Amino acid sequence: MPETIFQAWSVAHQNRFEGVLRSILPSAEVAPERLHAAMRYSVLEGGKRVRPLLAFAAGELTGAEISRVNIAAAAVELIHAYSLVHDDMPCMDNDVLRRGKPTCHVQFDEAAALLVGDALQSLAFQLLGEHTLNADPARQLQMVKLLAAASGSRGMAGGQAIDLDSVGKQLSLPELEFMHIHKTGALIRAAVLLGAHCGERLDDANLNLLDRFSKCVGLAFQVVDDVLDSEADTATLGKTAGKDADHHKPTYVTLLGVQAARIMAAELHSEALDTLAGFGEEARRLRELADFIVLRKF
Amino acid sequence: MPETIFQAWSVAHQNRFEGVLRSILPSAEVAPERLHAAMRYSVLEGGKRVRPLLAFAAGELTGAEISRVNIAAAAVELIHAYSLVHDDMPCMDNDVLRRGKPTCHVQFDEAAALLVGDALQSLAFQLLGEHTLNADPARQLQMVKLLAAASGSRGMAGGQAIDLDSVGKQLSLPELEFMHIHKTGALIRAAVLLGAHCGERLDDANLNLLDRFSKCVGLAFQVVDDVLDSEADTATLGKTAGKDADHHKPTYVTLLGVQAARIMAAELHSEALDTLAGFGEEARRLRELADFIVLRKF
Repeated sequence: MPETIFQAWSVAHQNRFEGVLRSILPSAEVAPERLHAAMRYSVLEGGKRVRPLLAFAAGELTGAEISRVNIAAAAVELIHAYSLVHDDMPCMDNDVLRRGKPTCHVQFDEAAALLVGDALQSLAFQLLGEHTLNADPARQLQMVKLLAAASGSRGMAGGQAIDLDSVGKQLSLPELEFMHIHKTGALIRAAVLLGAHCGERLDDANLNLLDRFSKCVGLAFQVVDDVLDSEADTATLGKTAGKDADHHKPTYVTLLGVQAARIMAAELHSEALDTLAGFGEEARRLRELADFIVLRKF
Repeated sequence: MPETIFQAWSVAHQNRFEGVLRSILPSAEVAPERLHAAMRYSVLEGGKRVRPLLAFAAGELTGAEISRVNIAAAAVELIHAYSLVHDDMPCMDNDVLRRGKPTCHVQFDEAAALLVGDALQSLAFQLLGEHTLNADPARQLQMVKLLAAASGSRGMAGGQAIDLDSVGKQLSLPELEFMHIHKTGALIRAAVLLGAHCGERLDDANLNLLDRFSKCVGLAFQVVDDVLDSEADTATLGKTAGKDADHHKPTYVTLLGVQAARIMAAELHSEALDTLAGFGEEARRLRELADFIVLRKF
């Protein structure tokens, strides 16, 4: 069954990627030991690794060497991990549970969490600067730019700022979409494009299709997250459930209701698959990931 | 008088560089407006711009185009500015005054300060990815790696972690030096090397000399900072004076006394100048900056 093959593919990549992260993160025996221990705590043994899987799938599309995609995927995942550590801090979402474990500032302390996030971001860019990810270094510099733009004030950090400003406000659907395109969409897009950039160059038309695919998947991911958050309990989710409603944060569910949010996710799913219609077997994993992201139960 | 020429050089670069920063930082009229306003507040109109001046001086050593050094210097200064914003936060140094103004989290709020720091770091790497700083893109990737390593857990962020862990402890002189080589030294070294990398390639021997110069200057900078902090009042310093002693942080002054700390700064100054002995007029500004860093009164 195709689903089983995809599951095997995912698990194999997730397991191998855990080893990549272990080798990339500084050892907890290297000074400053406590900071390094906290960095490893915040990154390892957690998460679905959706962004790395998207990078690996996009790397298959362009025939990229897996050793290169490992590094690109790790850079994206470190940015994601840093954002979770900072978002969980008391001055932001003030959350105590993440991936079934105490959050970094609970397990260590706030100052450590602040520095963990800062250092994980630096490490992401260090990876892109020190490993060969493309035979053409000019193209690799574009990857640096792409990840930095996706992370910064007009990407993920900006989306988080918009999110904070929206607490207690009534957002319109376009405003909510604008927020999520930044907060989660930008980094998902970076994952797909960085994975693809590790391989053969795509022409502009195909790159645009891939970009549209990643935008649809990124938004679908958030809509499904909102649905799951409104329905799941904390144990299943591995993070505090229902917190968005508790914080009076606008979500697709509070704005549209669960049914319409589900329909929206299905439409984005279908649009994502349409953008890949012109590709062949090499886009199989990207299609399957789009299915997984929309149909997942956690 | 040479001093006057150096002062004119410094002021001209500081003024021009302020314009560079203004044009590089996102406009406060672009969404998310409040985040962009807070980023500009935290970076503009403040600081001696010591790191950029070191980059410009090193750029003169290698005949670099000023437009390229502008970008390299801005990247370093954005990393420095982000570190100040995060260091001032309540969970770290909990400081309310910086460069004569309320700190970012006082003027805005803690969540904003957290995101300002995060986004400034991203912007630094975006600059290095998107502008041409060297005809050889492979060499520019090395600059990305260099700045990232200087910023991360084995550089500036790591030094900050060691600093936090040392509060209330008795450090030995080598331990204090280890902390400062990371906390301030790494980024000063990056400023010098990034400025130099914008120009003609130095051979390994000269690059090593420049590296030693920057290590001496970086450490001297910190020793002088400790002396000034122990003696100056808050108005002259533009930041809270005497706070290291208040926080029971070990400093060169608490460890050695003021007199011995002054002697140490003078020795580092002399060692820094020795490393440049083999260079000619092209190293003039680096020599003058070493003088300035040790002899400054603020």
